[in-house]
Amino acid sequence: MNKLIWPRLTMGTCYYPEHWDESLWLSDLRRMKDAGITVVRVGEFAWNKFEPREGEFTFDFFDRFLDLCQQEGMQVIFGTPTATPPAWLTDKYPECLNAFRDGTLMRHGARRHYNYNAPKYRELCARVVTQMARHIGKHPAIVGWQIDNEFNCETCEFHSEADTVAFRTFLQEKYGTLENLNRAWGTAFWNQDYTEWSQVYVPRTTPGNAQNPHMEMDWRRFIAASVESFCALQVEILRQYIGEDVYITTNGMFAHIDNHKLTRDCLDVYTYDSYPNFGFPLDGSYDPDALNDRKWSRHLTEVRSICPHFGIMEQQSGSNGWHCHMEGPAPRPGQLTLWTLQSIAHGADFISYFRWRTCTFGTEMYWHGILDYDNRDNRRLKEVKHVHALMEKLQPVTGADSKAAFAMVKDFDNIWDMEIDVWHRRFHEASEKAVFEFAQRTHTPFDMVFMQETTTLEELLRYPVLIDPHAVLLKPRRAELLRAYVEQGGTLIVGCRTGQKDPDGHCVMQPMPGLLSPVTGTEVSEFTFCSPAEPPVTADWAGETLDMPIFNDVLTALPGAKVLARYASSYYAGEPALVENTLGKGKVLHLGSAFSLSNLKLLMCYAGCLSPWEHAVEVPERVELVPREKDGRTFLFLLNYLNQSQPVTFNQPATSLLTGEVLEGTIALPPFGVEVVEL
Amino acid sequence: MNKLIWPRLTMGTCYYPEHWDESLWLSDLRRMKDAGITVVRVGEFAWNKFEPREGEFTFDFFDRFLDLCQQEGMQVIFGTPTATPPAWLTDKYPECLNAFRDGTLMRHGARRHYNYNAPKYRELCARVVTQMARHIGKHPAIVGWQIDNEFNCETCEFHSEADTVAFRTFLQEKYGTLENLNRAWGTAFWNQDYTEWSQVYVPRTTPGNAQNPHMEMDWRRFIAASVESFCALQVEILRQYIGEDVYITTNGMFAHIDNHKLTRDCLDVYTYDSYPNFGFPLDGSYDPDALNDRKWSRHLTEVRSICPHFGIMEQQSGSNGWHCHMEGPAPRPGQLTLWTLQSIAHGADFISYFRWRTCTFGTEMYWHGILDYDNRDNRRLKEVKHVHALMEKLQPVTGADSKAAFAMVKDFDNIWDMEIDVWHRRFHEASEKAVFEFAQRTHTPFDMVFMQETTTLEELLRYPVLIDPHAVLLKPRRAELLRAYVEQGGTLIVGCRTGQKDPDGHCVMQPMPGLLSPVTGTEVSEFTFCSPAEPPVTADWAGETLDMPIFNDVLTALPGAKVLARYASSYYAGEPALVENTLGKGKVLHLGSAFSLSNLKLLMCYAGCLSPWEHAVEVPERVELVPREKDGRTFLFLLNYLNQSQPVTFNQPATSLLTGEVLEGTIALPPFGVEVVEL
Amino acid sequence: MNKLIWPRLTMGTCYYPEHWDESLWLSDLRRMKDAGITVVRVGEFAWNKFEPREGEFTFDFFDRFLDLCQQEGMQVIFGTPTATPPAWLTDKYPECLNAFRDGTLMRHGARRHYNYNAPKYRELCARVVTQMARHIGKHPAIVGWQIDNEFNCETCEFHSEADTVAFRTFLQEKYGTLENLNRAWGTAFWNQDYTEWSQVYVPRTTPGNAQNPHMEMDWRRFIAASVESFCALQVEILRQYIGEDVYITTNGMFAHIDNHKLTRDCLDVYTYDSYPNFGFPLDGSYDPDALNDRKWSRHLTEVRSICPHFGIMEQQSGSNGWHCHMEGPAPRPGQLTLWTLQSIAHGADFISYFRWRTCTFGTEMYWHGILDYDNRDNRRLKEVKHVHALMEKLQPVTGADSKAAFAMVKDFDNIWDMEIDVWHRRFHEASEKAVFEFAQRTHTPFDMVFMQETTTLEELLRYPVLIDPHAVLLKPRRAELLRAYVEQGGTLIVGCRTGQKDPDGHCVMQPMPGLLSPVTGTEVSEFTFCSPAEPPVTADWAGETLDMPIFNDVLTALPGAKVLARYASSYYAGEPALVENTLGKGKVLHLGSAFSLSNLKLLMCYAGCLSPWEHAVEVPERVELVPREKDGRTFLFLLNYLNQSQPVTFNQPATSLLTGEVLEGTIALPPFGVEVVEL
Repeated sequence: MNKLIWPRLTMGTCYYPEHWDESLWLSDLRRMKDAGITVVRVGEFAWNKFEPREGEFTFDFFDRFLDLCQQEGMQVIFGTPTATPPAWLTDKYPECLNAFRDGTLMRHGARRHYNYNAPKYRELCARVVTQMARHIGKHPAIVGWQIDNEFNCETCEFHSEADTVAFRTFLQEKYGTLENLNRAWGTAFWNQDYTEWSQVYVPRTTPGNAQNPHMEMDWRRFIAASVESFCALQVEILRQYIGEDVYITTNGMFAHIDNHKLTRDCLDVYTYDSYPNFGFPLDGSYDPDALNDRKWSRHLTEVRSICPHFGIMEQQSGSNGWHCHMEGPAPRPGQLTLWTLQSIAHGADFISYFRWRTCTFGTEMYWHGILDYDNRDNRRLKEVKHVHALMEKLQPVTGADSKAAFAMVKDFDNIWDMEIDVWHRRFHEASEKAVFEFAQRTHTPFDMVFMQETTTLEELLRYPVLIDPHAVLLKPRRAELLRAYVEQGGTLIVGCRTGQKDPDGHCVMQPMPGLLSPVTGTEVSEFTFCSPAEPPVTADWAGETLDMPIFNDVLTALPGAKVLARYASSYYAGEPALVENTLGKGKVLHLGSAFSLSNLKLLMCYAGCLSPWEHAVEVPERVELVPREKDGRTFLFLLNYLNQSQPVTFNQPATSLLTGEVLEGTIALPPFGVEVVEL
Repeated sequence: MNKLIWPRLTMGTCYYPEHWDESLWLSDLRRMKDAGITVVRVGEFAWNKFEPREGEFTFDFFDRFLDLCQQEGMQVIFGTPTATPPAWLTDKYPECLNAFRDGTLMRHGARRHYNYNAPKYRELCARVVTQMARHIGKHPAIVGWQIDNEFNCETCEFHSEADTVAFRTFLQEKYGTLENLNRAWGTAFWNQDYTEWSQVYVPRTTPGNAQNPHMEMDWRRFIAASVESFCALQVEILRQYIGEDVYITTNGMFAHIDNHKLTRDCLDVYTYDSYPNFGFPLDGSYDPDALNDRKWSRHLTEVRSICPHFGIMEQQSGSNGWHCHMEGPAPRPGQLTLWTLQSIAHGADFISYFRWRTCTFGTEMYWHGILDYDNRDNRRLKEVKHVHALMEKLQPVTGADSKAAFAMVKDFDNIWDMEIDVWHRRFHEASEKAVFEFAQRTHTPFDMVFMQETTTLEELLRYPVLIDPHAVLLKPRRAELLRAYVEQGGTLIVGCRTGQKDPDGHCVMQPMPGLLSPVTGTEVSEFTFCSPAEPPVTADWAGETLDMPIFNDVLTALPGAKVLARYASSYYAGEPALVENTLGKGKVLHLGSAFSLSNLKLLMCYAGCLSPWEHAVEVPERVELVPREKDGRTFLFLLNYLNQSQPVTFNQPATSLLTGEVLEGTIALPPFGVEVVEL
Repeated sequence: MNKLIWPRLTMGTCYYPEHWDESLWLSDLRRMKDAGITVVRVGEFAWNKFEPREGEFTFDFFDRFLDLCQQEGMQVIFGTPTATPPAWLTDKYPECLNAFRDGTLMRHGARRHYNYNAPKYRELCARVVTQMARHIGKHPAIVGWQIDNEFNCETCEFHSEADTVAFRTFLQEKYGTLENLNRAWGTAFWNQDYTEWSQVYVPRTTPGNAQNPHMEMDWRRFIAASVESFCALQVEILRQYIGEDVYITTNGMFAHIDNHKLTRDCLDVYTYDSYPNFGFPLDGSYDPDALNDRKWSRHLTEVRSICPHFGIMEQQSGSNGWHCHMEGPAPRPGQLTLWTLQSIAHGADFISYFRWRTCTFGTEMYWHGILDYDNRDNRRLKEVKHVHALMEKLQPVTGADSKAAFAMVKDFDNIWDMEIDVWHRRFHEASEKAVFEFAQRTHTPFDMVFMQETTTLEELLRYPVLIDPHAVLLKPRRAELLRAYVEQGGTLIVGCRTGQKDPDGHCVMQPMPGLLSPVTGTEVSEFTFCSPAEPPVTADWAGETLDMPIFNDVLTALPGAKVLARYASSYYAGEPALVENTLGKGKVLHLGSAFSLSNLKLLMCYAGCLSPWEHAVEVPERVELVPREKDGRTFLFLLNYLNQSQPVTFNQPATSLLTGEVLEGTIALPPFGVEVVEL
C-alpha cells in the first residue's frame, strides 16, 4: 500500500511562476502562507525554463523561485515537464508526436501531443530530467516530485509509427511467435493471420473502423505498459539524485493505464485531480436527479483502491473551462469546502488547490484558480482560509482508514474489454453505476478491489460481501480467489455474462459462468438482450418483484444450488433468474441480469449488507455518509450536496470535530453543509 | 430469369472449418444432417488456407474437409476468398487497398478493404481462384460456388488511385472525348471543364464535400461496372474448371451494384442474406408501430425482381452483433421459423442459416449461429429441426411463382440519382416506403420491376397496374415502354417530378413530365416543396381528402385529360393535383405529389387494385399475406410478426400444408405464428 | 462611406451565357428588358472562357455576348473569375489549393478551393485579370466589376502551406521579434514558446483540437488581411484599364473578413447576396415563432453599416438548393416582392435577382432563378415585373438614409474572440439576437456601428443611445470614444464581461470593466455563469423584475454611481445588478448579465428609446417598420412577413408611394404585403 503517509492534513496549491511577473512571487507566497497553504506544485509545463534550446540548459529562473520558497518556508512539489515538449523539439523531431488513427500527427499548440515510445523523445526527456535532478534534486525546498502531468489525459490512444515499432516488441515478448499471436488474436477469423512481424500495426483506419478486438485489447495493455515504462524512466533518474525523504508521484486518473501497477512499481504515493464542478454542465445535460458533483465520490473510491491515503494534486477551486469547451459556473459558496471534505472523507490527506490565480492568457484562461485575474482578495480565498481552519480541526482523521460494508470487484482487462465490446459495455456501465448509486443512496459504504497479480485472499476477506458484477473475462486465479473467499465465509454476488471469456478474450466453449460454474452452482442455458419489443423483464422472488434489466442469462441450478427467483416475463418466464449456492462457510448469489438500484436493494438486504450506520445516524438519501476509523476511533463524514438544508438524526450522541459540540437528535445540515463527527 | 432452380426446398448452413478444432468437424457434420441440413457454405474468408504466403499454395486443409463432407453426404458451396486479402498481400501491395475520400487507405484488420481495380489485386485473385478451381473444382462434394462475399458491404464507395485510373478508362469508353464528358457533366457550371484525362479523379475532398452530381452518377455506374468486372474475372476462371451442373452465385444485396445485370451476365442464381432482427435495434430507435422485421419482405421483393427463385445464403438464426456495434436481442421462439417462411414465401427455395455455431473470437463473436459457444443442443437447434419438418411439408411450394396484384417500377439510375440529389431523395424514399406499407397493410401483393436494357413490354403487361413513383431521370425507352403498356390496357400511376431529367441527369428544358407528357396528358406549370410554414397540403377528390405530401407539382391537364382532384390548400388551391389520361386501352393517373399510405389507398381503390384476396381470407393489418402459385395451385402464406395471437378468417375452405387440416371460419394465428394454405 | 451612389433604383439579374445555347441569348436579353431588368452580372465563374489552357487567351465568347448587350442596351457587371480556378491550374499547381486542418487538400469539383496566398495563384489570377481588363476593360456595355465571388463562402478557414508561409510574414510584420509574439500569444502557458519563425504554423491538428487562442485570433486577422490583399491585387489591375465611371465591388458577407476595411480601401460600393428563404428550412428546424426570413433585416442592417447605400448582387427569386443540401420551398406569391422591398428598405438601391433561369445541371440545379428549366413565362417572372412597377414608384426613396433610434456597437476583434472563446460566445450571440429582436418587435429602428480605426465621435453622436453589449476585448481608443460619447450627452448601455481582455486577448489584471470602469462607475467583484442547478436569475428594479440571463457580473457601484437594480436570487442576491453612472451630459447603464428581449424593453424604456414611431403608426409585432429619410422627407416601409393579413393603424395621414392614396385609420396589410408611405 502507501509508501508515503502524510503526517498531517496538508494544504497546497498549484503555482506557475512562469505565468507571472516575477514581482508578484513574494506577495503570492506570503498570501498563500497566510491562507494556510504550505506546499506549491510547480514546473510541470516549464521545459523551456530549463532547456530553451536543444541542449542549452539554464536554471536561473527556478533557482530564484526555489530559493524564495526556501526563504519563505514554502515547500515545493516539482513536476517533470514532459507533458509539453517544446516547439523546437517537435518541429525538429516529429517522430516524437502522437498520431490520430489515420496517421495525421498531433501538432504543437496544445499538450500531451507526444508518444511514449519514440527513442528520441525518451532520450530528450531523460536528458532534461537528469539535468533538472542534478541541479535542483537536493534543493531543500523540494519535498516531492510529480512525473509528467495527467498521463493519458487529452488522449489515451496512440497511433504513431514509434508506437507500432514498440507494439511489435511488446507482442514479441508476450507471444514469442506469430503462431501464438495468431491464435490469441483469432486471426483465423476474416483471414487475418500475420506471417511477418512487420505486418502488425497499432490500430489503423479500416472500413467501418472495425478492428480485431483481441488486438484492441493487447493495444490497451501495451499503452498501459508504455505509460509505466515512460514513467519508470524518469523515476529511475530522479531516484539517483533526490533525497530519501523526497517522494515521487504523478497526478490524475485516466484511461488505458493500470494505475495500481504503476503506483506499486514506480511511485511513493498517488495523487488525483478532483473537479466535481463537471457535475454542473452548461450544455443542457444537467440532470437535477443525478448525483452530479457527488459522482466524484465514485472516482475517489477508485483512487482509494490504488492508494488508501492519497493526495489531491488539483482540487477544484473555481469555475472550470478551456477557451473552447468545458465551461461551468463558479462553485457556490460552500462547495469549495464541501468538495475538499469529500476528498478528505475518501482518504485524501493532502489537498492542493488548482490553482493560485487564474491564468490571464492561453487555453485555460477560464480554468479559474482561487484568485481572479484582478488579484484582489475574494470570496474563494476567504473560503480557502475557512477550509484551512476546518482541516486543523480534522487532524485526528489524518491517515484514518476507510470502513466499507462491502466491496465491488474490478479489473483492467474487463474495463478494456467493455470499451471494445459493446455487448459487455451495455450492462457493465449500468451495473457499476447502480452499485455506486446503491451505496450512496442507502448509505452502505463500499470500497473497490482491483484484481491484480498481487491481490491476496486476505484483501478480499476484509469484506463480508463482494459484488463482482460482470467478470466477463475471467482468469483462473480470480476464480480460485473467489472460491476461497466464499469457502471462508464470504458472500459473493455476480451478474450476467460472468465467465464468458478467457484471458485472450475468446468465448469459452463451456457453459457459462465457465470457470466460476462450480462456485455459483449454475449454468447458463440461454441468453439474450432484453428486447425493445417487450416490456421490462422482471423476476419473482418470493412475492417480491426483482427487475432484471438489460441482459438476461437464463440460469440452471446445479445440484445443491437453490433457485431464489424465477423470471416472470418473456419467453423464459418460470426459468431461474437468481440462484443461491452455498460453499464452505459462504454463499454465492448469481443474478441472471445487470444490476440496478432496485434489485441491489433486495439482494443486499438478503445479504445482510444494507445501511449499516442506521442505528447511529439517519441520513437523507441526498446526503453522503462516509465512515473512517483510526486507532479505535470512528469518524463519520456527512456531506450535503444540495443547496437546501437537510435533516440528520443522531440516534446516539456524536461529537462534532468541527465545533466540539455533542450532537443528538435531529440537526439541520445547511445547504452544501458538512459535518464530521466521532461516534 | 433463373438459370438454376432448386428442385426441392433445401436447408443449409454456413460453416467455418478454420474456426474450430478439427476434432469437431465430424460431429458438426453429423449433427447438421440430423437437423435436416444438407449443404454447407465454406471457404469465403479462407485465402490463407490456400495461399499462406505469396505464391505458396496448399490444399491439405480443405481436402480433408471436403473429403469428410463427401463421406458424410454433405454438399458444399465453396466461396472464393477474395473479400479478405491476406496481411502479406496488402502489406506488400498497398495499391490493392480501398481508400477513404481523403485518400487514407483502408488497412488490414476488418474485411472488404480492397479495391476492385488494382491490376495486382486482380492478378493475385485470379491466381488463387485458378489454383483453387484447378484443385477442388471437380470435387464431388461441391455443388456450387459463391464469388467473394457481400460485394459492397462495409463500403460502396471507392477512392483509391487504382479506381481513379480505371474510372478514366471507363469514362473514355463511355464518352470518347473530353468534350463529350464536359457536356455530360455540365462542366460549364463553376468552370469545371477538363482539358486532360489526367485531371479527372474519383471523388476527392472538396469544400463542403460538394461534388459535381453528374460525376457522382458516373462514379456509381463505374463502381457497379467494377463489381461486375471483378466478379466476371472469377466466374470465367471457375467455368473452365468446374462441372456443368455446379452453379455460381454471390450473396447479399448492397448499394452501387446493378444486381440484375450482374446476375444476368455472370451468375446462375442469386442468393440473399436476410437479417430481419435488425428490426429490433437496441439504440432506442425501435418503433412498435413500424414494420420492423416485416420490412425484410420489402428486401425479399427486390431480390425476387433479380431472380424469382432465389436462395438465402445467410438466414438469421441468432442475435446479430459485431463486437463494436449492431447488437440485437436473440430471436424469440418462433421468429426463426417466421423469418424462414418469410424468405420462402417471397421465393427462396434454399435456406442456409448463418451460421452453424457462434464464433468464439473476432469481430463477429456476437453474430450468433444456431449453436452457442458451449456447443450444446439448444432451443434454436430444436427450432431449426422444426423448420426442417415444415419445409418438407412445404415442398409443393418449391419453385412456385409470385402472384402480385401490381408492380412498382424502379431502376438504378434513379436510385443513384436520389442518393446524390436530396430533392429527389425526400420524395423517393417516402413514396417507396408508402408503396410497401400500402401493399403490406392492405394485403395487395406486389412485385418490383427494374427497368433494364432487357426489360420487355411482356414483363410489364403481367401486371394490371404499375406504380412508377418518381421516374425523375427518364430515358426514352422507358417512356416508350410505359406508353405501350398503357395503350395495351395497363393502368400507370406516376407521381411528382416525373421526367425532370435526361439520362445525363440534366434537367430537361421542356415542361415536366417531359418525355412522359404525351402519356400522362399533363404539364407541370409550377412546383415547390411543401412549406414548413404551411399546414399539410391536401387535394379534394370528389369530396374525399387526398393528402399531397412533401412536394407539389401544380398540374395542367392537356386536352383529353381529366382533372380528378384539385389542390385544396396553399397558393395553388384550385389547381389540378391529380389528372387521369386515357390512352389506347389503358389509363394513366398523374399525382402531383409524393405517395403516402393514405393517398395510395384512394388511388389503388380507384385503379381497382386493393386487397384482392379479401374474398378468400380476411387478414389483420399486422399479418402478412403472400400468395404463390404453381401448376394451377394457389398457396397463401400467412405470417404473424406480432408476439400476440391474431385472428384470420377464411371465407372459403383452405387446406393447411403444414397440418393437412381444412381451415374454415376464424382461426387464431399464434404469436409469431405461420400458416400456409392451399386455396 | 459610399463612393458610388445609384442615381435610381435599378433592377438587374445574374446571367451565365456559358450555361446556355447561344441561340437563347437574344431572347433572354429582350425578355429581361421587358421585365425592367437593365443590368446583368456575368463572368464570375468563367475563367475557361478566357484562358481554356494555361497561357492561351481567347475573348470571342464574351466579345459576342458583350456586343449583343451593347446592341440591346443591357448594362453589364463583369466578375473576375478567380473563385473557380480551372482544372488545368489546380492539377498542375496543387500549392494553389486550400487545405483542411489536417493538411488534406481541397480538390477540384466545387468552388472556392483555392488559397489567397500561393504566389503561383496570385500570379495566374493577376495574369487572367490583366488579360480580361486589357481586352474588355473599356467595353461600353460594362458598368461595373465584381471581384471574385463571395470571398470566404464555403470556408473561412485556411490551412495550406502557402498560408503558413504568409502567416509567418504577417506575424513578423506585426511583432518584429519572436519575443513579442511569444508574449502576445502567452506561450509561457503550456510551454509553447517559439524559438524559430519556422516553428510557427497556421492551425494544425492537435489533441482535442485545442489551439492557442491568441494564435487563433491572429490567424483570423491574417485571413482578413489575405482577402484584402488578394482583392487589392485585382482592383489595382482593373483600375489601370477600366473607365473612371466604372465601379468595382464584390458580393456576399462572410466570416473572417473585415468588410468595412475591405470596402473602404478597395471598393467603390458593397453588394450583398440576400437569401431570406433560408428562414424556411425543410430539416425540421423551422420555428413559427422565430423571425425566419425577417432575420435578413439583421444582415441588411450590418450591410448598411459597411455601405449605407448598397446593392443586392443576388436577390433570391426562387427556391434555394444545392443538389446535396440547403433545399427550400418556392417563395410564396408576394415573398419575392416582400424580400425585394426588405432590401430596399434597408438601403439597397440596386437589386439583381439570382438568377435569370435555373441552371439545368450542376450543383446548383435547385438554386432556382426567375425562370424555370422549361423557360416559359411563369409566376415569378410576373412578380418581377410587378416589383419593377413598384420600384418605379419608389424612386423618391433612392439614396434615402436610415433613421435609427439607437445603434449597437460591434467590432471584428470581438466577433472573432467570440468564435474562439465559448464563454464569450454564450452571451455575445444571445445578446445580439436579443437586441435585434427588441428592435424589430418594438419597432425601435437601429443601426450597427463597427468600431474601426477610422470611427469618429461624430459617427457615434448620431445616436442618442448606444448599446455596446459585451466589449470583452476592449481597446483604449474605444474606451476613449465611449467616454467622450457619454460626456457629450449620449446614453451608453453595456453588459457583462465588458473590458475583460486587452487587445492581445489577455485578461486584464484590474477589476472589470477594466478601461471602462471610470466610465461605468462600476467594478465587478465576482462573476459566474448562471448555474444549471438554479432557477433563472433575476434582479429587482424598483419593483419590476429584470431578467439577468446566462452570465452574471456582481457589480460594485463606485462613488457617484447609482445602483438601479439588485440581484433577487442566487448567492449574490442583494448585490448590484444594474448601475447607472452620470458623466458629463450623458449616462451609462451597466447591466451585469447578457441582454434579453425582456430586459431590453425595460432598459430602453428607461433610456427613452422605445417605439419612436408609435405616435404616427401602430404596427403589430410581426410586421417590420423601417424608416428612411431624404431631403427632409420621411418614408416608412411596412413589411408583413406573415401569410395572414395584419392591421396597421395610422394616427396621422400618410401617403402611399405605391398607390398615391392617403392612408388614415386602420388598414389591412395583406399576407406578405408591403406598404411604403411618406409621413
